[in-house]
Amino acid sequence: MAAEGNTIYLDNAATTRCDPEAAQLVMQMLTREYGNPSSLHAMGFRAEQQVERARAQVAGLLKSDPKEILFTSGATESNNLAVIGGARAMRRRGSRIAVFAAEHASVLEAARHLEAEGFEVCLLPPGPDGRLSPAQAAEAVDEKTVLFCCMLVNNETGAVNDIAAIAAAVKAKNPRTLFHCDAVQGAGKLPLSLKKLPVDTLSLSGHKLYAPKGVGALFIRSRVRLLPLLYGGAQQGGLRPGTENTAHIAALGLACERAGMKMQERFEKAQQLCRIFREKILQVEGACINSPTDASPYIVNVSIPGLRSETLLHFLESRGIFVSSGSACKKGARSHVLSAMGLSPERVDSALRISFCPDNMPQDVEKAAACIAEGAATLARARR
Amino acid sequence: MAAEGNTIYLDNAATTRCDPEAAQLVMQMLTREYGNPSSLHAMGFRAEQQVERARAQVAGLLKSDPKEILFTSGATESNNLAVIGGARAMRRRGSRIAVFAAEHASVLEAARHLEAEGFEVCLLPPGPDGRLSPAQAAEAVDEKTVLFCCMLVNNETGAVNDIAAIAAAVKAKNPRTLFHCDAVQGAGKLPLSLKKLPVDTLSLSGHKLYAPKGVGALFIRSRVRLLPLLYGGAQQGGLRPGTENTAHIAALGLACERAGMKMQERFEKAQQLCRIFREKILQVEGACINSPTDASPYIVNVSIPGLRSETLLHFLESRGIFVSSGSACKKGARSHVLSAMGLSPERVDSALRISFCPDNMPQDVEKAAACIAEGAATLARARR
Repeated sequence: MAAEGNTIYLDNAATTRCDPEAAQLVMQMLTREYGNPSSLHAMGFRAEQQVERARAQVAGLLKSDPKEILFTSGATESNNLAVIGGARAMRRRGSRIAVFAAEHASVLEAARHLEAEGFEVCLLPPGPDGRLSPAQAAEAVDEKTVLFCCMLVNNETGAVNDIAAIAAAVKAKNPRTLFHCDAVQGAGKLPLSLKKLPVDTLSLSGHKLYAPKGVGALFIRSRVRLLPLLYGGAQQGGLRPGTENTAHIAALGLACERAGMKMQERFEKAQQLCRIFREKILQVEGACINSPTDASPYIVNVSIPGLRSETLLHFLESRGIFVSSGSACKKGARSHVLSAMGLSPERVDSALRISFCPDNMPQDVEKAAACIAEGAATLARARR
Repeated sequence: MAAEGNTIYLDNAATTRCDPEAAQLVMQMLTREYGNPSSLHAMGFRAEQQVERARAQVAGLLKSDPKEILFTSGATESNNLAVIGGARAMRRRGSRIAVFAAEHASVLEAARHLEAEGFEVCLLPPGPDGRLSPAQAAEAVDEKTVLFCCMLVNNETGAVNDIAAIAAAVKAKNPRTLFHCDAVQGAGKLPLSLKKLPVDTLSLSGHKLYAPKGVGALFIRSRVRLLPLLYGGAQQGGLRPGTENTAHIAALGLACERAGMKMQERFEKAQQLCRIFREKILQVEGACINSPTDASPYIVNVSIPGLRSETLLHFLESRGIFVSSGSACKKGARSHVLSAMGLSPERVDSALRISFCPDNMPQDVEKAAACIAEGAATLARARR
């Protein structure tokens, strides 16, 4: 969503406004097609059909088979299931895990938990461009490495990893190493074909692509085995029991279908917004961009060293502009991503993340850049 | 929902139609108040306020403190967290777990998983009335028992356990034993006061009380410690990371508030429907009621021995009446609940669950009973 009343929402990497058609579908599922997919009667069957339709729509976006799509309560669960469920299933083959150090907390903390279960976790730092190199990936893998995790698009900087090359390098070193890719900030934004990409599991989140919060999916390649994190009914083959969130699943399916159809158009819009914003921001004295030049156009991370993120964030808020000081999930804690990239503490502590959606308008990002300039001047003066 | 077009929905224990006002709130959260509760700006703050408001509403229904309410993706997750997270946290104190044998699969299977982790699980069968006696509960507890699980209302029969007496008996034997109560079929239907009830954890599900599927809550008494099942961000104190399902959480809060306000009125309606149905069904030749006479009025379990559940279920479906052949989650598998109650295989294999909501009308249940009578006569003739 661009501007509602006087507000400009540029925090789309934290969460997006639900597509109105997807929201209407939620409404319909809640009040009309409210059957339990496990019920044996027609209302149950229709609900089940909606879930299976959504599974096919998600599979369509990822160019995978519907049987390879599992619905979850969100990317945190998807990532935990891939990391913890994957490592546990591979336990007998080894106990080493290699993880990109700039991963989201739901991958990093899941891996950290595995240390308590006896796994050895090797963290691979990003380069100054925020990315992992295939050579570095290969070097970290040995015959004991059971799991490798690397995200597609970093949620703070937008840095895009070359997953095809990285996964190929990992598999060349050890074909049995499970490869997990957190694609939360990339799915629906960058073309993905899981027919070709040599990853075993890949996660996505509804609320990052105009579907609701509280629903996600995990691609699990055929014949890859994970151990479940939850136990109960027979839903989703027992790997993810519990009555399906039919309303949000249907909305996720629709959002994925639309993301697939509009990917190029939206991408070009994001490129335009990103280009305008970058141009304007580089005219602000002292401003530096922390995102690599070839980052996803949906995210720009910028610093005005010496001016703390939160101060500028609240200044922008007073002008009706909503941005983030990093990952929303970290609620203002210092960025492990920018630190790992080797940025100075001053630059890390002043980072702002601006993230776009196709509804944002060029004048929105121009205004945001102008307000950052104004804030930089005003607040810097105030500090003198 | 009672009748939509020509259908009569009597499968409300499987899932309910979402309250239209709760569905409207979902819509508003998805398209207007769509901020991420972890975001530091006003949109995040407003979303966080909605989540906290819902937490207070759930706490209000249970007469507990909002700090004691955790939101989850549903009762399967709530039960898993209480059972697995509770047992793991208590590991050093002992390795015995006692579980009522008529529990839902999400409790039974979670306990079964704990056996693989070295816990010893003792299953306590229900009496012929489908209930657990406090004496039986006390007998199963010793100094090594770290967890005791007993549901409030059985999902297949509606049998209501005297949780106050059972939990008191357990605590008298071992005050350190964690007591978990699955209250999915009771919360919002029977009065509950967690200020008084000596349970440590208690689960509920949104979609059983006119909120959406895919959201649930777990009451966790202050100072009771559980180990998380998921790892990631700092949401909900780190015990349940992941961006909150704000829309469904808000709807769950509203549904709980309304359930609290309308509990007596709805209960009397359910009693009326249940009384009518029981009277009519007992006039059907060969019919027997598997629910105890003092069961929750929201559920009646009935058998026409010799006539298979699915046959009658589909006959009723052909008349536009939707019921269940047991727990929806089991998709037609033989009932472990009725078997554990000692019912004959013939009676178990012919069981139907009829479950009411306040929107059902007396004529709906009369028609259902009449159709069961018709089905019993027709189908029995066909089999001769």
